[in-house]
Amino acid sequence: MSDVLRVGMLGCGNVGAAVARMLHDHASDVERRAGVRVEIVRVAVRDPSKKRNASPLPHLVKEPDDVVAAADVDVVLELIGGIEPARTLVLQAMAAGKSVVTANKALLAEHGPELFDEAVRRGVDLLYEAAVGGGIPVIRTIREHLAGDRVVRITAILNGTTNYILTRMTEGGSTLADAVGEAQDLGYAEADPSADVGGHDAAAKAAILATIAFDTSVPGSAVFREGIERVSPEDIAFAGRLGYVVKLLAVAERVGDAVSVRVQPAMIPYTHPLAAVRESFNAVLIEGERVGPLMLLGRGAGGDPTATSVVGDLIELARGRASAGSITMAGHAAHGPAGAAARPLLHMDDLEGEYYLLLEVADRPGVLAAIAHAFAHHQVSIKQVWQEGRGEDAQLVLITHRAPERTFRECVRTLRGLQSVKDVRSVIRVEAAEA
Amino acid sequence: MSDVLRVGMLGCGNVGAAVARMLHDHASDVERRAGVRVEIVRVAVRDPSKKRNASPLPHLVKEPDDVVAAADVDVVLELIGGIEPARTLVLQAMAAGKSVVTANKALLAEHGPELFDEAVRRGVDLLYEAAVGGGIPVIRTIREHLAGDRVVRITAILNGTTNYILTRMTEGGSTLADAVGEAQDLGYAEADPSADVGGHDAAAKAAILATIAFDTSVPGSAVFREGIERVSPEDIAFAGRLGYVVKLLAVAERVGDAVSVRVQPAMIPYTHPLAAVRESFNAVLIEGERVGPLMLLGRGAGGDPTATSVVGDLIELARGRASAGSITMAGHAAHGPAGAAARPLLHMDDLEGEYYLLLEVADRPGVLAAIAHAFAHHQVSIKQVWQEGRGEDAQLVLITHRAPERTFRECVRTLRGLQSVKDVRSVIRVEAAEA
Repeated sequence: MSDVLRVGMLGCGNVGAAVARMLHDHASDVERRAGVRVEIVRVAVRDPSKKRNASPLPHLVKEPDDVVAAADVDVVLELIGGIEPARTLVLQAMAAGKSVVTANKALLAEHGPELFDEAVRRGVDLLYEAAVGGGIPVIRTIREHLAGDRVVRITAILNGTTNYILTRMTEGGSTLADAVGEAQDLGYAEADPSADVGGHDAAAKAAILATIAFDTSVPGSAVFREGIERVSPEDIAFAGRLGYVVKLLAVAERVGDAVSVRVQPAMIPYTHPLAAVRESFNAVLIEGERVGPLMLLGRGAGGDPTATSVVGDLIELARGRASAGSITMAGHAAHGPAGAAARPLLHMDDLEGEYYLLLEVADRPGVLAAIAHAFAHHQVSIKQVWQEGRGEDAQLVLITHRAPERTFRECVRTLRGLQSVKDVRSVIRVEAAEA
Repeated sequence: MSDVLRVGMLGCGNVGAAVARMLHDHASDVERRAGVRVEIVRVAVRDPSKKRNASPLPHLVKEPDDVVAAADVDVVLELIGGIEPARTLVLQAMAAGKSVVTANKALLAEHGPELFDEAVRRGVDLLYEAAVGGGIPVIRTIREHLAGDRVVRITAILNGTTNYILTRMTEGGSTLADAVGEAQDLGYAEADPSADVGGHDAAAKAAILATIAFDTSVPGSAVFREGIERVSPEDIAFAGRLGYVVKLLAVAERVGDAVSVRVQPAMIPYTHPLAAVRESFNAVLIEGERVGPLMLLGRGAGGDPTATSVVGDLIELARGRASAGSITMAGHAAHGPAGAAARPLLHMDDLEGEYYLLLEVADRPGVLAAIAHAFAHHQVSIKQVWQEGRGEDAQLVLITHRAPERTFRECVRTLRGLQSVKDVRSVIRVEAAEA
C-alpha cells in the first residue's frame, strides 16, 4: 500500500477549490488521521487556464478521461454535477478499480442503485456524504451509526435557499418574490430559482435518504413534490396565529412494508425541533426504532462545509484501503444481485394527513353551513375554523383533523365547485410533531 | 476471517440487555450491514442466576477473565462501568489481541490516552460512541466526519438529568429539590443525584470530547466544574426576563495553542440553538473552522439509544476487521509514542467572560454608587442593572460586559466585603451565541 492517497478530481468550482484548500491547509492533520498523505494529483476542468481560488493545483487537464483512466489516480472525486457525463465517468472510474467520492445529488437520486451495484461488483467504494445536507453527516449517521437500528421516519429541511426564503417571509413579512430577490442578492439562489423553489433539489436529496435509510430504491422523479410557489405571507401569518411555522419539509417514512417520500410546504408546531431551524441552515430529524429522535443541524451548502464532508469521505477511504469495497457493500448489499426487492412506494392518496385551508368565500348567511356540509359529506372533520374579513374580502381559515388524503382531495374538489367558495387559495399539510 | 463476529460482554444491565435485544431482533439487518453475523457468545455477570430482560444470552459466566481471555471471543464489550476492574479487563482484552467497545465514560475520561496508546501498540481498536451522548453520534462525527476539519469549540448539554431538572425549574417554576425529586421518580436521577447535579458526569464526557477534538489529553479531574446546586428559581426567572435560558453547559474550546474545558451553569440567549433542548435530551454544538456550526441532538441515556451506539461500533469493527487497529490509530496517533504533546489546559482565571450577578443589598441611598465604584475599581463594566424589591428584600440584578475572569473574581470578593452588600446570592456565566 502506498503512503499517499492520490486523488483525481473532476471539476473545480467552489467545492473543489475548498477541498484543495482544506487538504493543503490541514495537510498534517489529514495525514495523521488518514494514515497516509491525501493529495490531489490531477484535476479535469473545462478551462485549465482560468484562475482559481484554490491552493496550487497540480496537473490541470482538459479531458476527464485523463483523470478516470490515469494509473497514478487511486480515488476519483466527482464534482461536475448533473447526470451526464458524470454517470459515465463514475462508471469508468469504478471499472478502472478506483473508488469514487461524489457530491452529486442528481446523479445519486436517479442512478444511485446502479452505481452502488457497480461499486459492489468492482470491489470499490462509492461515498457521497456531501450530496445531502452539505456539511451535515447525515449519510454517515444513517449508514454507520444507525446500522443496527431501523429508521422509522426522516423529516428534514434539505434546501437552504427555500428555508432562507421562508424565514424572510416569516420574520420580515416579505412576499415570496422579494424574499427570492434577497436570496439571489446573497448568492443563495440561482438566477433561475426553480430547482430550489419548486422543491426539485430537496426531492433529489429526499430520494437518496429514503434509498439508504430504508434499503430500497426511490428515484428522485418518484418523490411527491410540491414547491413553495403558492405559499403566501397570509398563510404564514395564519400559521403563526395557530402556533405553526411553515417549512419546506422532506418526509420519508416507513408505512408497513412500503415507504412514502414527499417534499412539500408543511406547517409544523413551533415546538417541533425543526421549527427553530432558521435562515439557510439545513436539518435532518431521524426517528429510529431504538435510538428515538436524533436531529442533525448545520450548513447545507457552501464550499467549505461541503468540502468538509468530501474530505471526511476521502480520509475514510484512505483508512479503509485494506478492505476496499467493504463500506459500500455493507451498506448497499440490498441492491446487489442477491439483494432484497425494492419496497413499494406509496402514492400520496394512500396517506393520511391534517390540512390547513384558506378559502375565499362569499360573505352571506349559509356559507359556513354549505362548506361544513361538504366536509361532512367527505367525512373530513374540521378541527378549527374562523372567518377573516368581511364582504368582498371574506376568508375562511380551516384546519382539519386527520383524514385520508384521497377523500381530502375530493373534498377540496367539492369545495371548488361550491357557489359560495370563490377560491381555494391555499392548501398546506400540517405535520404533527411525533418526536 | 470467520463469518461471525463473536462478542464477549462484561456486565449485563440496561444497556447490555438492550444490545442483546437489538442484535437478536435486527439480526438480518445487522448481518447485511456488518458483512458477518454479530453474536454475543459469552457474558460475565456478577450473578448468572438473576433473571434478565434480554434475548436468550448464551454462556453466562461469573468470571470476567473467562470473557477477556476466551479464544472464542473476537471483541470485548465492556459495560461494567467505573475505573476498576474495567481498566484492567480492557487492557487484558487488548493484550489478548481483541478490540474493545465500551460505554465507560469514567474510564475513558481518566485513562483514555493510556488505553488508546495500548490499542495502537496492540494493533486493535477501541471504540466508545456510547460513552458520550448516549445515542448521539458525537464521537463518530468528530473523529470521522470532521477528520479533515479543525474543531474550534464544542458547547454541549451532556447530562440529561440536570437538563430535565432545569427544564422543570424553567417551565414549571419548581425548586431544585422538587425537580430533583421528579427526576428521581422518573428514573432519570439516582437516589444520590450528586454525580449528575454536581456536574461530574458532564465533566467526564467533556474531557473525552476535548481529548479527541483537540488531539490532546484532558483528564476529567482537570475539567473546571460547577454544578447546578446553587441555581435558584429566581435566577432562572431573571434570566428569562433578560432573554436567557439557564443550562448546565460543557464548553471545550481552543484558545490559541491551549484549550479550555469547563462545565458550569450558564445563561444562553433563547435564540441559541441549545436553548430549545428540553427535558432529558442531550445536544452537542460543534463549531468547526470549515464546517461552521454543526449541532447533534438526541437521547443522551437509556438502554435502547445507548445500545444503538454500541451496535454501531460493533458493526464498524466487523466491517473493518481486515484493517484492525486502523480506526483507533488514525484517530489517536497523537497519543502514540511519536505523537504530539498535550496542549496546555487553561485555568478559568485565564479566560474572559460575561457574568450575571444577583446581590442582596441594603435599600438606602448610595448603595448603587458603592457597588458601581467596586466594579469600576476592578475595570469590570456593567451592561445592565436593576433593583428588585424594596427594604429588607432589595436585590440588585447585574449583567457585566466581557471581562477577564481573574479580575471579575476579585471584583466579586470586593463586593462581598462591602457593607451595603448583604450577600452575593448568585454568579452565573453568560455564554453568548457565537454560532
